[in-house]
Amino acid sequence: MAFIDVPEGVPGIRSLVMFRPETGQHLYSLVQVLLRSDSPLSPAERELIATHVSSRNNCQFCRDSHAAAAREFFGENRDIVDCVIHNKPTIEISLKLSALLNIAAKVQINGKEVLPEDIAQARHNGATDRDIHDTVLIAATFSMLNRYVDGLATLTPTDPAEYEEMGKRLASRGYVLPPTKNN
Amino acid sequence: MAFIDVPEGVPGIRSLVMFRPETGQHLYSLVQVLLRSDSPLSPAERELIATHVSSRNNCQFCRDSHAAAAREFFGENRDIVDCVIHNKPTIEISLKLSALLNIAAKVQINGKEVLPEDIAQARHNGATDRDIHDTVLIAATFSMLNRYVDGLATLTPTDPAEYEEMGKRLASRGYVLPPTKNN
Repeated sequence: MAFIDVPEGVPGIRSLVMFRPETGQHLYSLVQVLLRSDSPLSPAERELIATHVSSRNNCQFCRDSHAAAAREFFGENRDIVDCVIHNKPTIEISLKLSALLNIAAKVQINGKEVLPEDIAQARHNGATDRDIHDTVLIAATFSMLNRYVDGLATLTPTDPAEYEEMGKRLASRGYVLPPTKNN
Repeated sequence: MAFIDVPEGVPGIRSLVMFRPETGQHLYSLVQVLLRSDSPLSPAERELIATHVSSRNNCQFCRDSHAAAAREFFGENRDIVDCVIHNKPTIEISLKLSALLNIAAKVQINGKEVLPEDIAQARHNGATDRDIHDTVLIAATFSMLNRYVDGLATLTPTDPAEYEEMGKRLASRGYVLPPTKNN
């Protein structure tokens, strides 16, 4: 049971934005811009970075929901997602994305872990300022969301079918604020 | 020098929201609601939680700017801020705030570190759902901002007078998006 009185049966972040929509609306707007709007990184690649960080933070709700969204976007290459979660090498990932995932993993630990040579490696493989910016901000944002969801002990579904459903919704509709008692 | 091409001479988060205002606007709106609008915690207490987490993440820019804002709000009790940064006990801090700072410090490590007994301790000292919610979300948000600022190696001023100036501005004007080339 969650540490605070959130709507019963509603999982993860959704229960928290229903508890406090005044902050929730900005969280959802941020994630929508960051993972869906204009970026040199595809939505699939951005969901993969979100999954990678959530997995490293051991946040099951965020990991499994964003992994499901990433699988939707990757389509027939969906096996990439499990390779990243389980740290298995895969030739399906470009050298650029691999260098960006390395940066994201360092941000997950602490911002100061990112070294000039990590940035140089990403640039050597074709990353631009925007690739690097978006990677760092996605990794930082999920370092927040993972802590918000787990720090308040929100409901974490265990049925894979529930996450598959969430993945389809996130891929087709994006990040839409759930209804609250006020709207 | 920052890892990406941000406006020269602009420190910390401000340089990043000028680089990417589309995400910056939501970050600033989130922080404004979280640290300034309606909450059972005073702005002084909320800035103190932000300072505590930033200090533990070793993010000098966020620590020193929010410490300066907290000092403005605490007024003659401003010594509290240095006690929290240096982990010195102080009778000026209520048992409730002390329990909430403990929760924030656990969120800084990982959301799963927050245990039912930490929540019970806070409730025993008068914390409500909103106190607990706001504490966890402030701690999570600064876990994001610290990583964003340091992960891109943004400019960190070293002159204490600059932070004092920032503290006055944050206390009087709040979190206002800096002008960008587009506006």
